[in-house]
Amino acid sequence: MRPGERLDDLQRGGLRIIQSGRHFAFSIDAVLLAHFASIRSRGTVVDLGTGSGVIPLLLSHRSPHARITGIELAPEVADMANRSILTNGLGDRISVIQGDLRHIRKLMPAGTADLVTSNPPYMPLGTGEISLTEAQQMARHEVTCRLEDVLAAAAWLLRTGGKFALVHRPERLGDIMAALRGYRLEAKRLRLAHPLADRKASMVLLEAVKNARPGLTVEPPIYIHNPDGTYTGTIQTLYEGGALS
Amino acid sequence: MRPGERLDDLQRGGLRIIQSGRHFAFSIDAVLLAHFASIRSRGTVVDLGTGSGVIPLLLSHRSPHARITGIELAPEVADMANRSILTNGLGDRISVIQGDLRHIRKLMPAGTADLVTSNPPYMPLGTGEISLTEAQQMARHEVTCRLEDVLAAAAWLLRTGGKFALVHRPERLGDIMAALRGYRLEAKRLRLAHPLADRKASMVLLEAVKNARPGLTVEPPIYIHNPDGTYTGTIQTLYEGGALS
Repeated sequence: MRPGERLDDLQRGGLRIIQSGRHFAFSIDAVLLAHFASIRSRGTVVDLGTGSGVIPLLLSHRSPHARITGIELAPEVADMANRSILTNGLGDRISVIQGDLRHIRKLMPAGTADLVTSNPPYMPLGTGEISLTEAQQMARHEVTCRLEDVLAAAAWLLRTGGKFALVHRPERLGDIMAALRGYRLEAKRLRLAHPLADRKASMVLLEAVKNARPGLTVEPPIYIHNPDGTYTGTIQTLYEGGALS
Repeated sequence: MRPGERLDDLQRGGLRIIQSGRHFAFSIDAVLLAHFASIRSRGTVVDLGTGSGVIPLLLSHRSPHARITGIELAPEVADMANRSILTNGLGDRISVIQGDLRHIRKLMPAGTADLVTSNPPYMPLGTGEISLTEAQQMARHEVTCRLEDVLAAAAWLLRTGGKFALVHRPERLGDIMAALRGYRLEAKRLRLAHPLADRKASMVLLEAVKNARPGLTVEPPIYIHNPDGTYTGTIQTLYEGGALS
């Protein structure tokens, strides 16, 4: 553990994760994505922009025989993710590559992944607050990675029929859907998360399939909070280690 | 009234509509679209593929000063819509043009509509059942009007900032979102309707704006039925003449 770091319990069979106040802590977005994605029992998985490695850790719990690679640009964040993996004794199933997903062709082979996940920066460059550390800027804004870079990397990595699972903001859904087909990715599953049942959606979960035919299913919505401010049963179950209903 | 026709009450200030067993009766899809669309108090509105004219009739009730034109290809259906309008004494506010929306440039001027609505055929040609009358085929399948024809007609009709409100099937949302920007239409409002709270969506309500900047809002979902099979309060209110909540 380095200064400013802490070890948090992921509530899944003793899984723990190192996080640091200098970077964004993982959010409910990542937890929802890790449970929304269609993972095969012995799949090959890549998480683009893995941060603290929360998505690979949660996926490894859902699928104990999957082989998972996280890619992270920031060296100190990639190092932290690596130490979390070793702390959990998962070095044989999860690895972290420190590198730039814009140069994915130099990092990993084409057409070998069954599943690619990503919880990328949500905001286009030049929007939102600027009083963030450099690492926080990179995680939240498209400083080093635009939406199209993520789609291009996913398309490179996936085999035909492989799945790309993404969490993003509803505001960007038009951009995402307009761009997917240019990368031979076809949207097949969509799920919206709303903070409350009568509020607009705050999160989009989308799964696209490489080289698939058109045909989208919109699954039931997810509500985060009850009207009294408590977590809904769906979210409570997730935080207690259960599956996404 | 012609043989096989009946006069139905729209539950809105005495509005009535002529329908016929030889054609599809209007569905909840049309009712939801007519209440979802953003209509201005003195707007110019065009309904593409208006059928029995249910959408113009409902819109005229929501916005008593709007001028509304319905376009319908099938002559006997256009005639039925026209007679409904006259029956309601709305001939000064609603008109029906019998014509082919694929030739919209010969039917109506460019860039003058504030709102274009459409409840188009949902199914690509060559899918689904074939034991339908010719008029039913035209209403349900893309025999005479493909999705792209509807988008092209809407784009022609709308002024900059004008709105295109569409109801369609979730399966086609990928096709719709991939095509919109080619017509300078930007998706701005999306709302999903689910038959029950825990079922996949059966209907998409989408509003796009001509020449707008990106940025989509996903509004709260609509549920059609309660678990006991009765209509939800949202739908009950609509059928009793209330607004969409």
